[in-house]
Amino acid sequence: MIDLTRRKLLVGSVPVVGAGAALLHSQVPHAHPWDAEPAAAATGGHGGHGGGGGTHGGHANFRDGRTVDHRANGFDPHEIVRDFDWGTTRRLPNGRVLREWTLIASEREIEVAPGVTFASWSYNDRIPGPTLRCREGDRLRIRFVNGAQHPHTIHFHGIHPAEMDGVAGSGAGEIPPGGRTVYEFDALPAGLHLYHCHVRPLAEHIAKGLYGTFIVDPREGRPDADELVMVMNGFDTNFDRANEVYAANSIPFAYMNRPIRVKRGELVRLYLVNVLEYDLINSFHLHGNLFEYFPTGTSRKPAELTDTVMLCQGQRGIAEWRFPYAGRFMFHAHQSEFTELGWQGFFEVV
Amino acid sequence: MIDLTRRKLLVGSVPVVGAGAALLHSQVPHAHPWDAEPAAAATGGHGGHGGGGGTHGGHANFRDGRTVDHRANGFDPHEIVRDFDWGTTRRLPNGRVLREWTLIASEREIEVAPGVTFASWSYNDRIPGPTLRCREGDRLRIRFVNGAQHPHTIHFHGIHPAEMDGVAGSGAGEIPPGGRTVYEFDALPAGLHLYHCHVRPLAEHIAKGLYGTFIVDPREGRPDADELVMVMNGFDTNFDRANEVYAANSIPFAYMNRPIRVKRGELVRLYLVNVLEYDLINSFHLHGNLFEYFPTGTSRKPAELTDTVMLCQGQRGIAEWRFPYAGRFMFHAHQSEFTELGWQGFFEVV
Amino acid sequence: MIDLTRRKLLVGSVPVVGAGAALLHSQVPHAHPWDAEPAAAATGGHGGHGGGGGTHGGHANFRDGRTVDHRANGFDPHEIVRDFDWGTTRRLPNGRVLREWTLIASEREIEVAPGVTFASWSYNDRIPGPTLRCREGDRLRIRFVNGAQHPHTIHFHGIHPAEMDGVAGSGAGEIPPGGRTVYEFDALPAGLHLYHCHVRPLAEHIAKGLYGTFIVDPREGRPDADELVMVMNGFDTNFDRANEVYAANSIPFAYMNRPIRVKRGELVRLYLVNVLEYDLINSFHLHGNLFEYFPTGTSRKPAELTDTVMLCQGQRGIAEWRFPYAGRFMFHAHQSEFTELGWQGFFEVV
Repeated sequence: MIDLTRRKLLVGSVPVVGAGAALLHSQVPHAHPWDAEPAAAATGGHGGHGGGGGTHGGHANFRDGRTVDHRANGFDPHEIVRDFDWGTTRRLPNGRVLREWTLIASEREIEVAPGVTFASWSYNDRIPGPTLRCREGDRLRIRFVNGAQHPHTIHFHGIHPAEMDGVAGSGAGEIPPGGRTVYEFDALPAGLHLYHCHVRPLAEHIAKGLYGTFIVDPREGRPDADELVMVMNGFDTNFDRANEVYAANSIPFAYMNRPIRVKRGELVRLYLVNVLEYDLINSFHLHGNLFEYFPTGTSRKPAELTDTVMLCQGQRGIAEWRFPYAGRFMFHAHQSEFTELGWQGFFEVV
Repeated sequence: MIDLTRRKLLVGSVPVVGAGAALLHSQVPHAHPWDAEPAAAATGGHGGHGGGGGTHGGHANFRDGRTVDHRANGFDPHEIVRDFDWGTTRRLPNGRVLREWTLIASEREIEVAPGVTFASWSYNDRIPGPTLRCREGDRLRIRFVNGAQHPHTIHFHGIHPAEMDGVAGSGAGEIPPGGRTVYEFDALPAGLHLYHCHVRPLAEHIAKGLYGTFIVDPREGRPDADELVMVMNGFDTNFDRANEVYAANSIPFAYMNRPIRVKRGELVRLYLVNVLEYDLINSFHLHGNLFEYFPTGTSRKPAELTDTVMLCQGQRGIAEWRFPYAGRFMFHAHQSEFTELGWQGFFEVV
Repeated sequence: MIDLTRRKLLVGSVPVVGAGAALLHSQVPHAHPWDAEPAAAATGGHGGHGGGGGTHGGHANFRDGRTVDHRANGFDPHEIVRDFDWGTTRRLPNGRVLREWTLIASEREIEVAPGVTFASWSYNDRIPGPTLRCREGDRLRIRFVNGAQHPHTIHFHGIHPAEMDGVAGSGAGEIPPGGRTVYEFDALPAGLHLYHCHVRPLAEHIAKGLYGTFIVDPREGRPDADELVMVMNGFDTNFDRANEVYAANSIPFAYMNRPIRVKRGELVRLYLVNVLEYDLINSFHLHGNLFEYFPTGTSRKPAELTDTVMLCQGQRGIAEWRFPYAGRFMFHAHQSEFTELGWQGFFEVV
C-alpha cells in the first residue's frame, strides 16, 4: 500500500509502484492544473529544491483534464458553490414562517482526488452538507435521520435551547444508527453560521465530512449579489491526523480546472466557512482585489477591507467585492502548503 | 515510566502497565465526563477509528466522579473563575489610590489530571496566579518575592516605565532565588491585560505556570454583570514541548464535572486570556449563543458578535452575553484535539 | 555536516564538532544578546530544563558583539527599517504621476546568523526587497528583470488587472531566467500591501526571500510620524520545511544588538508585514505600551488598541503609538519559540 503522507506529496517523493502510483502522483504540486491553460506562459516544473521535479508526462493528473468523478461522488463543487437550500415553508397559525428540511447522515466512499478514495460520512450525500438558508425569525425544523453506522448529531452554531444543541447529554443526545430526531428552534441571529456533528471523537466526526453551512438572512435582506458559498476543508486519507488534500467545497483544484464565472462590476458575496480539522488555521486570499469582510456575518458594517483573512475551525465570515477587471483571478489559502495540496481556484471574470 | 504523549492519548493507545495506567487512561477522550450525566443519552464510546475505544469499566476516570485533589493543589478552578483580587488600598497624599499586592513565586507539584502530577511554578501557589484587578489611574505596587529556585520576574502587559518591565536588563532585571523587588506603575490603559514571567527560556517559564490576569477597570466602570475569568492554558507533562492536557484555569474537564452556574437573562462578562504555550493558537467557542467580543477589552464598542474567537498567546478579550434559555451549554476550544484533551466545560443556566 | 534543526537549537543539543559548531552554538537561546548590556541584571543562563545550559564562555556569539556581516550580505536591517523607496516619478500628459522602479531577482548567499549561511533568492539583493511606496492613484510601472536561474514573478497584493498579477497563465506569466517584463497598474487601494514571487513550489519561492512591502499612501497622506517597516520572516537553513531562525527584516536579534532609536512622545508608525513561511501564524508584541492597529492599513479608524497582533502569511497592518517613557522596550513574537530563535528586538526611547 502506498503511504500517502502530506510530507511526501510536498517533496514529490511518492514512490512509483504501479498504476496506482501514477494517479497519486497527480497530486504532487509540481504538476499544477493551470499548466495546460492555453494562455499559460508556464515554463514547466523546475526541479532543484526539495527533491521535486520528476517527470509528469503520461501521468494521469489534473493537467490532462482528469478530475474526480463528480457524478459518482454524488456532488459537484461547481453546483455546491451556488446551491442554497431554502427548505420547504408553510405559514404557522401565529403568522410566522415554518421552514423545514430533512438531513440524513450516511456513509459513502468518495473520490477526493483522481484515484484517491475516502470513506466519508456526510449529510444528504454531499460534502459539505446542504447550505441551509432561512430568514431571521423563521421557525426552523430540521428532521435528522441517522442512516449511518455510528451515532451522530447535528450541532448548530447560533442561538437555540440546550435540548436542541445536538450534543450528548442534552435533549435527544447522540442519535444511534437508525435513529432519528427533530431539531427545532428560531432562526437567530442574522449571520453566517454552520452545523456539524458533535459526537466524539470530535475530530473524526467532523473530518469525515459531517458539516455544512447555515445562513440566517437579516429580516431586511442583503443587497442583490452573485452569492457563493465556500466551505474550506480537507481530508485525512491515511489516518495520520493530518490532511493530505485541501480544498474549498471538498475537491482539490476543482475551481482551477473549471473557474467560477462571475460578472465584472457585479457585487460578489462569498459565504466563507472554515471547518478544516487537524490544522490550527486556514485562510482565504483573493488576487488582484480586496474585499469587505464581515466576520460571522452578524454586522452590516464591514470590519475590514483586505485581501486575506485567517480563520480557525468554526469561524466564518462574509466577503463582498466587485471585480473592476475581466480575466482570471486566483483565490487560495495563503498557507503555501494548503495551496499546493489543492486549496486554490480561479474566478473567471467576464 | 509511561510515555504520556498527546498523540497516544488521542488514539487511545497508552500502554497499560499497572495501576498508574488506569489513571492515565482516564484522559483518553473516549471516556468523557458527561457520559454519566442523568440526562445523558450517550450511547457509550464507539470504537472504529484511530484505534480508540477500549474498555473504561472500573477505571478511575472523570466519569465516576473522580477529579483532581483541588485541596492538595491549593487552588480550585471553581473558585478561580470568580476570584478577583483587588489588593489592599490606601489614599495617597495626592488623592490617588495606591493599590498593593504581594506575589510570591514558588514551586509545587500539582495534580493536573487524576493521577497525573506536574512540577509547576506559580505565583501565590495557584495557576493561574491571582487575578489582579484595579481601576484606571490607580497607582499600583506589586511586591514580588522569588521563593523559587530559579530566577523569575513579573512582566506586565500594559503601559509602564522600562524599569518596571520585568525583563533582564531593565530595572531590577531577573530576580534571583530568594530575591525580591517592587513593581510600581500607574494602571493604564483600561482593559484586559495579563502578567507572566519573562525569564528565558521563555517557553518553560510560562508553561510551568507563571502567569495571571490583570484587569484595569475603566474609570466609569462597566455595567453590572456576573463576571468570570478564564485563562486558557495547558501542561506539558512529559517535557516534549507539546501539551498533553488543555484547560481553562488549569484543570481539564473541571467545568464539565461541575458546570459554572449562571442565571438566565443575566449579563455574563467573561475575561478571556490565552497563555497556552507550544500551540500557536487557542480558541473559545460558546454553544447555543453568541457573544459580543471586545478584543483586549480596551474599547467600549464590541468588535464582533460571534460564538468563536481565536487568540494567540498573549492575546485576550472580553466576551459579553445573556442566556435566553435555561439548561446546559457547552464551551470549549474549537480545536477538537484541545477539546478532547480537556479544554471544555458547561454553563448551567438556571 | 551539522544538522541544524530548530528542535536541537531550542534544547541546546547542537553537537560540538569543531570551529563551525561554536558559531552555530551562538544561536542557542540560552545565550541572549542582552546578557552583556551594561544595565543588565542578568544572572546568567540557568540550566535545568530541556537539556539546555552548557558553557558559552569563549564562544563567538551575539553576546560578545558578533553579528552577521551586513556589508557582505548587501543589506542591513537597521537601514531597511526606515528605507522607503519612492521610485522615480514623472508627470503623465493626463496629469497623473507615473512612478517607476526596477526590481531584479537574483541569487545570493547571505549570512542569516553568525556563521550560518543561506542560499537566498531576493529582489535587488536585499531581504526583504525594497519597500515600494507610492500615493493612491499614481500610475505604477515596475520593470522586472529575472537575473536568477529559476523562473520568477512579482505578484502584488492590491487591485490590478489579471495580466499584471504575476502568476503563471496570466499576462507574461512566469518570467524565465534572463527574461524581463513590466508590471503596470494604478496604485489602489490606499493601505499596506506586499509583493512576492508566485512561482511554484510557492513555499520555496517565498521562503528563499522573494518578497517585500508595498505601501500605498492615502491621497490626503497620514499624520507625520517616525515611520518603520518590519517584515516578519525566517529561514529554513536545513531544508526540512521548518525555520531555524526568525526575525523582523531577516537578521535574528539584529535589533537586540542595536536597538531602534525612537523619540519619547513622538508618533511611531510601524508598517508590519508577515511573510513567514512554514509556520501558520506569527505575531508582534510590544512591551510597556499598547498601539492602535489598522489591519491592512485600509481604514483610517483603528480596529483595536492592543499590544499583541497575530497574522498569518500575507496579512499585514499598521501599528501606531507614542512612548510616554524613555528607556528600552522589547518587541517580539508572542510565540516563545520564535522569540528565542531570533524574532525579538528593542526600541531605545530617548
